Amino acid sequence: MQFSKITIETIHQLKTIVKPQNVFTDEETLKRYSHDETEDLSFLPEVVVKPETTEEVSALLKFCYDNTIAVTPRGAGTGLSGGALPVFGGISLSMEKMNKIIEIDARNLQAHVEAGVITEVLIDEVAKRNLLYPVDPSSKGSCFIGGNIAHGSGGPRVVKYGTLRDYILNLEVVLPNGEVIWTGANTLKYASGYNLTQLMIGSEGTLGVITKAVLKLVPKPSHNLVMLASFPSADSACEAVSAVFRAGMTPSALEFMERTGMEWVLKYEEIKFELKDNVEAYLLVEVDGNNLETLRADCEKIGEVLYKHGCSDILLGESASEKEELWKIRRKMPLSVKANSVYKEEDTVVPRAELPKLLKGIKEIGNKYGFKSVCYGHAGDGNLHVNIIKESMTEEAWENQLPLGIKEIMQLTVKLGGTLSGEHGIGLIQKPYMSIKFSEVHLQLMRSIKQVFDPKGILNPGKIFN
Amino acid sequence: MQFSKITIETIHQLKTIVKPQNVFTDEETLKRYSHDETEDLSFLPEVVVKPETTEEVSALLKFCYDNTIAVTPRGAGTGLSGGALPVFGGISLSMEKMNKIIEIDARNLQAHVEAGVITEVLIDEVAKRNLLYPVDPSSKGSCFIGGNIAHGSGGPRVVKYGTLRDYILNLEVVLPNGEVIWTGANTLKYASGYNLTQLMIGSEGTLGVITKAVLKLVPKPSHNLVMLASFPSADSACEAVSAVFRAGMTPSALEFMERTGMEWVLKYEEIKFELKDNVEAYLLVEVDGNNLETLRADCEKIGEVLYKHGCSDILLGESASEKEELWKIRRKMPLSVKANSVYKEEDTVVPRAELPKLLKGIKEIGNKYGFKSVCYGHAGDGNLHVNIIKESMTEEAWENQLPLGIKEIMQLTVKLGGTLSGEHGIGLIQKPYMSIKFSEVHLQLMRSIKQVFDPKGILNPGKIFN
Repeated sequence: MQFSKITIETIHQLKTIVKPQNVFTDEETLKRYSHDETEDLSFLPEVVVKPETTEEVSALLKFCYDNTIAVTPRGAGTGLSGGALPVFGGISLSMEKMNKIIEIDARNLQAHVEAGVITEVLIDEVAKRNLLYPVDPSSKGSCFIGGNIAHGSGGPRVVKYGTLRDYILNLEVVLPNGEVIWTGANTLKYASGYNLTQLMIGSEGTLGVITKAVLKLVPKPSHNLVMLASFPSADSACEAVSAVFRAGMTPSALEFMERTGMEWVLKYEEIKFELKDNVEAYLLVEVDGNNLETLRADCEKIGEVLYKHGCSDILLGESASEKEELWKIRRKMPLSVKANSVYKEEDTVVPRAELPKLLKGIKEIGNKYGFKSVCYGHAGDGNLHVNIIKESMTEEAWENQLPLGIKEIMQLTVKLGGTLSGEHGIGLIQKPYMSIKFSEVHLQLMRSIKQVFDPKGILNPGKIFN
Repeated sequence: MQFSKITIETIHQLKTIVKPQNVFTDEETLKRYSHDETEDLSFLPEVVVKPETTEEVSALLKFCYDNTIAVTPRGAGTGLSGGALPVFGGISLSMEKMNKIIEIDARNLQAHVEAGVITEVLIDEVAKRNLLYPVDPSSKGSCFIGGNIAHGSGGPRVVKYGTLRDYILNLEVVLPNGEVIWTGANTLKYASGYNLTQLMIGSEGTLGVITKAVLKLVPKPSHNLVMLASFPSADSACEAVSAVFRAGMTPSALEFMERTGMEWVLKYEEIKFELKDNVEAYLLVEVDGNNLETLRADCEKIGEVLYKHGCSDILLGESASEKEELWKIRRKMPLSVKANSVYKEEDTVVPRAELPKLLKGIKEIGNKYGFKSVCYGHAGDGNLHVNIIKESMTEEAWENQLPLGIKEIMQLTVKLGGTLSGEHGIGLIQKPYMSIKFSEVHLQLMRSIKQVFDPKGILNPGKIFN
């Protein structure tokens, strides 16, 4: 792809489109916007622009479209697939200044927000009105709603509440040529032509820039309970996961963690927890609802299922601090793993009951290619984060052998009815594996859709496919 | 659009692609496939073809693509927007022989079905395994899963369980040129490039023919309770609807019915129900869950909200037959209205709390243009079916004045944050109103997506847009 370089003249013009103080070319800023949370990858943008309104985004994109300038939209930079990396330089378009909660419409159980609102800020704000926005990725404290939508981000509560997709009613989108549309309507149902709202979700900023969103909210359950269950093997824990659902229970979260992950969390975090022998895996189970007695009965029933599948011990969190402590273990796991070693993270997802096969296969592939992995994730959704640990691997093995192993993991995932990514997206780093999942016909449909929205290919170039 | 006529030679060739006995040209069959449930519209196909396998659909479409023959895919013909009408003649492609439930995967809470499975057949089959497929349009006894997906069909349980969209994991689709793809993966989460599954849902057979689907199931709640609440005015009933949700309750159905609809049901159906004076509207409320005591408490809480909003009386259905009797009123309403008069049905949808404004506006527009309407629908979703009754209207007013009135209803719907159709689709009859909701830029995006999938425009021509 051939994009125009950013010149002094371009910078001058950008400063007439957005406020001059929102155009950055200093080295420190460029460096900060050269990476997201994906491994140690870094690509310098030529300029960082922070628009404050939809009109500014529109004028900016029109200018870039007319001048064939590469634009990489950016949320909070918490992505794990390299979606916000400006691999062709050009403009890093940060949505951080469009961070207003426009309205919390309690009459309709909806929230109207700008794309740069931090997910947890919204969750906390709606909670004050006894409402729940149940989409809470691990990075909720810093990630943006707009980035979540662009990547189809998930989180632990999908298992009961459904995916982010089920909570996005309508999007304001600036198309690559600067035109602005609302993709749908502010309604719970919609059968009015092709659903562009759903097409935008997960399109990773390649089809348009999401500037505003109308979100569905639900009544906030008044109670929840949390259990941490220990298992003698990862296999028995995985088997227990689908047994819980087969028993007719729908927990509001069901997370899986390997022992090594737990060890590393305890190494880096102040958490009171006794690591016992003969425990190889943990399940974190949450139930929520409006009746505490019913929840206690649910926990008992779920507990029975877990014990039947080899569970050796269950810790119950009832008080707010106990529950917080149990959740902290799971929430801190990604950072602890990251702190412990150079790593690569794969975001495998399979039908729930295939988890044991997936986990077993991953370990076998690891043995074959000589890598260790720490797995945890949203087991209730069949979504397993595979953290491949460099530790003592040679650079040569890391660079040349590992990609073959990852390819085999992806092949296994697809063979089990799954796909390359459950909630992180394809971005830059999963691109090489697309042909494992998709036929050329399928890929060509995607490329042609991209062409419809962005004939000049200026928006987030180099992502999802080539 | 210029399509090839079906000749004797074409028929001969079709009989080499599918079994000869599955190609129909007799007048009776052509007539039966010339209409769906949309008003009294009728367009004769030139031939009806009933493939039995995906391979046959693929070969058929390839042949039609190569020879520029119009193909109108058809489910059970229960549609209310004319989506299955072969307006350009050509082939009516009926999916009725692809009606196998391939697998009910109780381990993964999934069902694998062919597109021609009758919705209720699937619902009953999964219920035997204590599972729930919560998508149950009024026509569930005859409509097909494939047609439901193509139209984004709804039903009463969306209000708690979400739309059909949330239950479709993966689709086998035959593209207009005969290529076959699976659109996604059999997983609860999916962040792997543009989501073609979601794009296919609601595309009304214009982008590809859905041949198989993988559906998400949920545990079936063991109990439910039904209430029928009477209100002195439609306005107070509508106000009560959003109050229920604001009180933190999420019923599994919340249906609205006008008094006239009730009168007509009682006229045509054997139902024991006393129609009282001073009642102008009804709400049917269902709650479901695993604990009967909790449900009784829920009913009490919802009842309090309803009484506070002017409800004069609540009938509680506890036994299976009582509940069935109350549901029968709502389920029989569409047919009773249809039996009573020539009518047109609009499928308006707005944010839930705007229902009172919508209903009031519809009546005012009716007064202005001289038409009567009977309204009922999925009030919990803000989805109101507006049945415009011909009765004593002159042909002239019906043909010329009414469309202006409908246009005003659509304008009002859009103004209130809603859209043209909540669950019936655009098809043929809502097409004239598309420009009320969508800008030319937006429509052009849809047309270009159509062009990507179907460059020759052979699949369901004349639908959604021109």
